[in-house]
Amino acid sequence: MYRIAPDVTIIDISHNVSAHSIFEGALKLRSAYRHFPTDTIHVAVVDPGVGSERRILLARTGEYFFLAPDNGLLTFVFDVSPPLELISVENSRFFLPGAATTFHGRDKFAPVAAHLAKGVSPESFGPPAAEITKLEHPCLAIEEHRIIGEIIYIDKFGNLISSIPHQMLEGKHIKKILFREYSIKALSPSYYRGRKGECMALVNSFDNLEIAVNQQSARDVLKGEIHDTVVVEFEEYTGAGT
Amino acid sequence: MYRIAPDVTIIDISHNVSAHSIFEGALKLRSAYRHFPTDTIHVAVVDPGVGSERRILLARTGEYFFLAPDNGLLTFVFDVSPPLELISVENSRFFLPGAATTFHGRDKFAPVAAHLAKGVSPESFGPPAAEITKLEHPCLAIEEHRIIGEIIYIDKFGNLISSIPHQMLEGKHIKKILFREYSIKALSPSYYRGRKGECMALVNSFDNLEIAVNQQSARDVLKGEIHDTVVVEFEEYTGAGT
Amino acid sequence: MYRIAPDVTIIDISHNVSAHSIFEGALKLRSAYRHFPTDTIHVAVVDPGVGSERRILLARTGEYFFLAPDNGLLTFVFDVSPPLELISVENSRFFLPGAATTFHGRDKFAPVAAHLAKGVSPESFGPPAAEITKLEHPCLAIEEHRIIGEIIYIDKFGNLISSIPHQMLEGKHIKKILFREYSIKALSPSYYRGRKGECMALVNSFDNLEIAVNQQSARDVLKGEIHDTVVVEFEEYTGAGT
Repeated sequence: MYRIAPDVTIIDISHNVSAHSIFEGALKLRSAYRHFPTDTIHVAVVDPGVGSERRILLARTGEYFFLAPDNGLLTFVFDVSPPLELISVENSRFFLPGAATTFHGRDKFAPVAAHLAKGVSPESFGPPAAEITKLEHPCLAIEEHRIIGEIIYIDKFGNLISSIPHQMLEGKHIKKILFREYSIKALSPSYYRGRKGECMALVNSFDNLEIAVNQQSARDVLKGEIHDTVVVEFEEYTGAGT
Repeated sequence: MYRIAPDVTIIDISHNVSAHSIFEGALKLRSAYRHFPTDTIHVAVVDPGVGSERRILLARTGEYFFLAPDNGLLTFVFDVSPPLELISVENSRFFLPGAATTFHGRDKFAPVAAHLAKGVSPESFGPPAAEITKLEHPCLAIEEHRIIGEIIYIDKFGNLISSIPHQMLEGKHIKKILFREYSIKALSPSYYRGRKGECMALVNSFDNLEIAVNQQSARDVLKGEIHDTVVVEFEEYTGAGT
Repeated sequence: MYRIAPDVTIIDISHNVSAHSIFEGALKLRSAYRHFPTDTIHVAVVDPGVGSERRILLARTGEYFFLAPDNGLLTFVFDVSPPLELISVENSRFFLPGAATTFHGRDKFAPVAAHLAKGVSPESFGPPAAEITKLEHPCLAIEEHRIIGEIIYIDKFGNLISSIPHQMLEGKHIKKILFREYSIKALSPSYYRGRKGECMALVNSFDNLEIAVNQQSARDVLKGEIHDTVVVEFEEYTGAGT
């Protein structure tokens, strides 16, 4: 990228997405992208289908550009920031000469991002992409005094990440959080509060509600699994906000 | 940070401090900070107390700024470079809107550092902080021909790091280094010298004297533990220095 | 480096070379270096001999500078880009004051690279280096319709990397790839093709031909070892290229 666009600033958000986990990548991208300056080009390569016929997508939202394989990686970003323009990146003029079939991150994504940073227009990279691949949305519903979600991801510590975004909880007085036979009274401000082995709910680094067990694995201790239901019972605040 | 201060240069010294090890973070920070340009802002977040009432400190020394939780992380830096100004960072105007209770690194430390880099004065972030938290200093004494220290940290390889800083050894002719029943004749220039299983002493990446066993774990082989005594016997050089 | 040369751009290619593996470092360097802008200074420190008498080399090729211990780390780079100038870096004026015997990366390589970036001439760092250390070249031969190589490296997944560079395969119609009792019909475009447990050949991130087993360890399944022979049978293309 520096070779093509010497003045570019490159930031490495993460090289730690679990191999092949499009879902995890999609969640991390959604929680990270909005902290970056306007016109940032987000390059996301969680790409188990590299070498297959999957396309490369270039998307423009109101504030950012996104470059990713067309495998659903942008699903959750588009929930918040719908794409205004979608291009199927096909113009090999912008790929490295002799682009390998296995290393698109280096040979296709990186040079395309660099040319885009230098001011090449999105349309130059290929034709519009109409139909795109989307991940299935997890269960999430809001009723009068309840939010109903499900466990969508279990991290390496055994924490159970739910489909309930932090934003849904704002301005609400939480009465209890229900998970399996457990009833949790309030959000914990951190992992380090409470007694060892205690069941807690907190907002995690994906900005989603998470069920955790202090210093232990919630997957093991609570027998938590993907698709388990999580319910938040709440009252609306009647007084002043925050 | 780039959003607030686009021209800033960000350097990642380490994301590998053991979780919750304030002591290890404090040692790494002390050995790293002085290699950076004047006016560098060092942001150090080893923060097991996040979400508790612990304050955020902004310190100015002669040459640098430091931003860290008030949990002792700056103890060893201040031994070498005492703070000229200490601020308790409380002005939420410089935090991200809706700052989470669990992710102060992103929501408080990063934006404060960026505003500081842009030229906001330290006083703008909060009131002076008089009393601050300090780590207990390890045992360290110098006698006429002996330096007496203790093991303060055991790394993941089982190397035993002592409280004796490299600077204390300069200009001295080491006669022997005593650890438990072992007598080591000289500092090794590297881990890769000597026979496998041999007990060695060397200066490690924290710039402290370390007891190690070639290609094995000194903790296991020598039964070394935190607080074990290390003694260096020396003569002052009488001739010209190095 | 920023202290000496504030305007420099520093890129971290990899901190993941296996400890002490000069061979792996030499392969990674060869596959990475040519993607960087002209005049890039490549600093490579895989340095098991630190603290010994091994020299530090500064090499200038047509397009780049390289700074590395004289332990063979530049062998494969020099195969492709022979050095036009070779310097033995000895002038301690460019080292950090009190340079440690164990941390040459920080105390010698980094400041020398920074001074070079600032425009100090290569000759200022020391005398010419005539004889340099080279790694032994692995077995590699080309006959009329066969390329004969050997396994040179086994990665942490158990993939078997051969001595056959990707460039040797270009413009050739591969008939089969022979490894032990296996006959592989064609190059796979990626790891994710084919059936689980299937034996495959592909071009890997070192740009070399690699023998792999889909989702398993080729070392374990095929009993592959270093120095095992790999044969590619081919026909030259007679029609148009690619």
